Amino acid sequence: MTSGSPEDAWFAEAEGDPTISKDAARPIVAELRSALLKAQYERLAKSDRSLLIVVAGIDGVGKGGTVNLINEWMDARHIRTLAFGPPTEEEQRYPFLWRYWRHLPPKGRSGIVFGSWYRPLFDALAEKKTRRNRVEQLAACIRDFEALLAQDGVQVLKLWYHLSRDAHKKRTAKLLADPETAWMVRPEDQEVARNFKRVRETAATMITLTHSEAAPWHVVPSADERLRGITTGRLILDTLRAPAPVAAAVPSPLRRQSNPASTAPRRRRLSLVDHSVHLGENEYDDQLSYWRSRLANQVRSKAFGQLPVVLVFEGNDAAGKGSTIRRITHVLDARQYRVIPVSSPTEDERARPYLWRFWRELPAPGNITIFDRSWYGRVLVERVEKFARPAEWRRAYDEINQFEQQLTDSGALLLKFWLSITKDMQLQRFRDREQSPFKSFKITPEDWRNREKWSAYTTAANDMFDLTDTTQAPWHVVSSNDKRHARIAVLERIVTAIDTRLQK
Amino acid sequence: MTSGSPEDAWFAEAEGDPTISKDAARPIVAELRSALLKAQYERLAKSDRSLLIVVAGIDGVGKGGTVNLINEWMDARHIRTLAFGPPTEEEQRYPFLWRYWRHLPPKGRSGIVFGSWYRPLFDALAEKKTRRNRVEQLAACIRDFEALLAQDGVQVLKLWYHLSRDAHKKRTAKLLADPETAWMVRPEDQEVARNFKRVRETAATMITLTHSEAAPWHVVPSADERLRGITTGRLILDTLRAPAPVAAAVPSPLRRQSNPASTAPRRRRLSLVDHSVHLGENEYDDQLSYWRSRLANQVRSKAFGQLPVVLVFEGNDAAGKGSTIRRITHVLDARQYRVIPVSSPTEDERARPYLWRFWRELPAPGNITIFDRSWYGRVLVERVEKFARPAEWRRAYDEINQFEQQLTDSGALLLKFWLSITKDMQLQRFRDREQSPFKSFKITPEDWRNREKWSAYTTAANDMFDLTDTTQAPWHVVSSNDKRHARIAVLERIVTAIDTRLQK
Repeated sequence: MTSGSPEDAWFAEAEGDPTISKDAARPIVAELRSALLKAQYERLAKSDRSLLIVVAGIDGVGKGGTVNLINEWMDARHIRTLAFGPPTEEEQRYPFLWRYWRHLPPKGRSGIVFGSWYRPLFDALAEKKTRRNRVEQLAACIRDFEALLAQDGVQVLKLWYHLSRDAHKKRTAKLLADPETAWMVRPEDQEVARNFKRVRETAATMITLTHSEAAPWHVVPSADERLRGITTGRLILDTLRAPAPVAAAVPSPLRRQSNPASTAPRRRRLSLVDHSVHLGENEYDDQLSYWRSRLANQVRSKAFGQLPVVLVFEGNDAAGKGSTIRRITHVLDARQYRVIPVSSPTEDERARPYLWRFWRELPAPGNITIFDRSWYGRVLVERVEKFARPAEWRRAYDEINQFEQQLTDSGALLLKFWLSITKDMQLQRFRDREQSPFKSFKITPEDWRNREKWSAYTTAANDMFDLTDTTQAPWHVVSSNDKRHARIAVLERIVTAIDTRLQK
Repeated sequence: MTSGSPEDAWFAEAEGDPTISKDAARPIVAELRSALLKAQYERLAKSDRSLLIVVAGIDGVGKGGTVNLINEWMDARHIRTLAFGPPTEEEQRYPFLWRYWRHLPPKGRSGIVFGSWYRPLFDALAEKKTRRNRVEQLAACIRDFEALLAQDGVQVLKLWYHLSRDAHKKRTAKLLADPETAWMVRPEDQEVARNFKRVRETAATMITLTHSEAAPWHVVPSADERLRGITTGRLILDTLRAPAPVAAAVPSPLRRQSNPASTAPRRRRLSLVDHSVHLGENEYDDQLSYWRSRLANQVRSKAFGQLPVVLVFEGNDAAGKGSTIRRITHVLDARQYRVIPVSSPTEDERARPYLWRFWRELPAPGNITIFDRSWYGRVLVERVEKFARPAEWRRAYDEINQFEQQLTDSGALLLKFWLSITKDMQLQRFRDREQSPFKSFKITPEDWRNREKWSAYTTAANDMFDLTDTTQAPWHVVSSNDKRHARIAVLERIVTAIDTRLQK
């Protein structure tokens, strides 16, 4: 072993194969168990936090047994083991974090994660010819994911179980010698000794790439069963006792944008919308039927079966989101689309990071999810109505950009529409709605209250455009004072975007 | 057409292809839309009910268009289209109702179901050589499912869209003639005319088999677009306006059991348990390691990959369910099992029929779900603590038997254990728990309160054994005064049962 190598920095201690005697362990374990239970109840169960324990490490060092031990020491009713095998065919069609997002434990609970989001990264690093892009992309996703979790009260404890090559060989031989324990040795465990150097290097790189203050790695010496358990228990205890993360000093994207170098008063996005555009009825009918028939054929094509499509609709109240969406869905097969109306979150949704409920609704390839309002609520209504704290909505711009990047990187087509109307037009539509027997349900006191905050919503929307109008997922701001114009503009954008993707 | 055939009884009216003029339709539609919105808000949104609209019928009669219309007429934000294609490989591994259970809308919402649970029944009936067993099994499952839904406040409206063969041909030809509507015709729509007689007969049989008071079928004449929409709207309105179903006069299984013919005082199941059985420590160690090593090998065998296993643990408080479960999971691979601790339902769970949350946790083949308490809570704690109304827990015995039958019919191995201790032993364990630093969290004032209701719980448990001890899913009542005895008895049963299944 070369002293001072990056591997040594991580593993030297564990590869010393430290042990603890039975007598020394007994009182430590007794104290640890009480403390763990106490912390689980006092620090976790009643709090707004949850805990994810990532269990990783060399194969065949007793990780499973350690997890069983933790379940015994703590109140297992509040711990869920989340074990992920190789991704199913279905899972492979989504961004790679999709399956982990879906299974996030609610507040007050713990999850022990086997086969975590580190598996794909480890595998990518272990490839004979490492694809740098792939590695960096995975590592960046993971860092962003864990930072988001930490900020939203999900503590992530990452454990790498490790021992020396000799200790590993001894352990395997001993288990195999006894028919009653031989089953504990899986075929892959026997490969470890042969590939030890390689695994060690790969692990060190992975750990270095993803070690962060928000979610640090810990190497657990694993040659001695007792010490392995005690070390694990102590790390869990420290994590439970750690203070809630301070709202991190995320560099405010808002501040970044308001660049003092540019002295000209910046014209903001919504002030640039031309609300006078108009489409005649005949022209509209022709265009509608042209674009719809193209869309109808696109979504029934074979190539479309490979494309997941996400459509986001935001805009002023009464801008016509619902009717525009219906003009689209009219030509879709009911089996291939879902419209997700987004309103206040349920109890289950509130118990997880706010993006959770959107991750759950992502479309499979060949499917279309239409969000009638979306995750942008975080930086619109939640900001204006103060449902989210400033630290929360300020960091949401970055979180949203990361989320959308993962979506588009995984092959999804994402289109974001803002339907814009003038304040006068809104008033007219509110009044029309009140008169119409079919539409009066759409107008509530809340709508009138929101209207009073018109300028706050406009500022929020303009900030949103500044900060989330990315290359992969640009905003399409469409005047909807004339609904016919808006519907055609939206349809055309969708058809054109799908076309571009299907041509590839 | 033979007059008086069963098909005519269902379809004669629709095959008359009735129409309505534009002028006649206009005021009807206007009134209908207001009424629908009003009913949706007043009868559904604020109530404890939900509505499932099953959309079925001849291919290519405009079902999709009608669904779009309903979404336009009603407040689409509270309606979800649930479209099911052919089951995925994953879905085929579960009872056939699994996918429908998973997607039940919560209270206050509506679901429009395409490709419903009638698809497999229709296909089974349409097979050249009808397999009677398969058909009857599916029909029985569906009847039970819909009866359960109706009882639990989910109204099911079943629509069969129909028209004459001539009208179908005309419609298809007209759509195909215009390139802008040609996409509406799917390949299967063009098959309809050729197979019309067959489809008609199959549909009539299916409808006859599954028409019930709780969930009646309605045939919607579909040749005329306007009338099709109006008829659909009216049926939805009638359903929304219908009074909540009266707790049906389910023949009480309790009454059935207390058979007056047998005059001897019946000895009840729990009074038959021998709590004196005991296992010495050495004998225990040997047995434990024998059975566990057998289990460890079983679950790692190739054949096990095809077997889904469900283990249910019920029993007195402090009977040792948790520690027994840990003795089992100790040898399992963390990737293949889940322990589901069952306590009070969440908001999302309360908004659905009580079996919903258990359906969601069923294991895939090769996996094991262990329920630490289970759906039997309905007839135990919910009965004793009066969380469920008598009508609810009384009908639960049948519902549970049906659920378990579907589970075992689909190939799952289901084992139900009751760990039984005496009242004295419980007292002793409660006191021990209070003394132990690791166990004091397990004992709460609630446990002491439950203990006061010992005899009510005993009666409930005995009724449960009488009514749910079925051939496919018998109860294993195990004395747990001696925990060592209980653990070995449970392990042995599990290993033996798995063995029997793997031998097949």
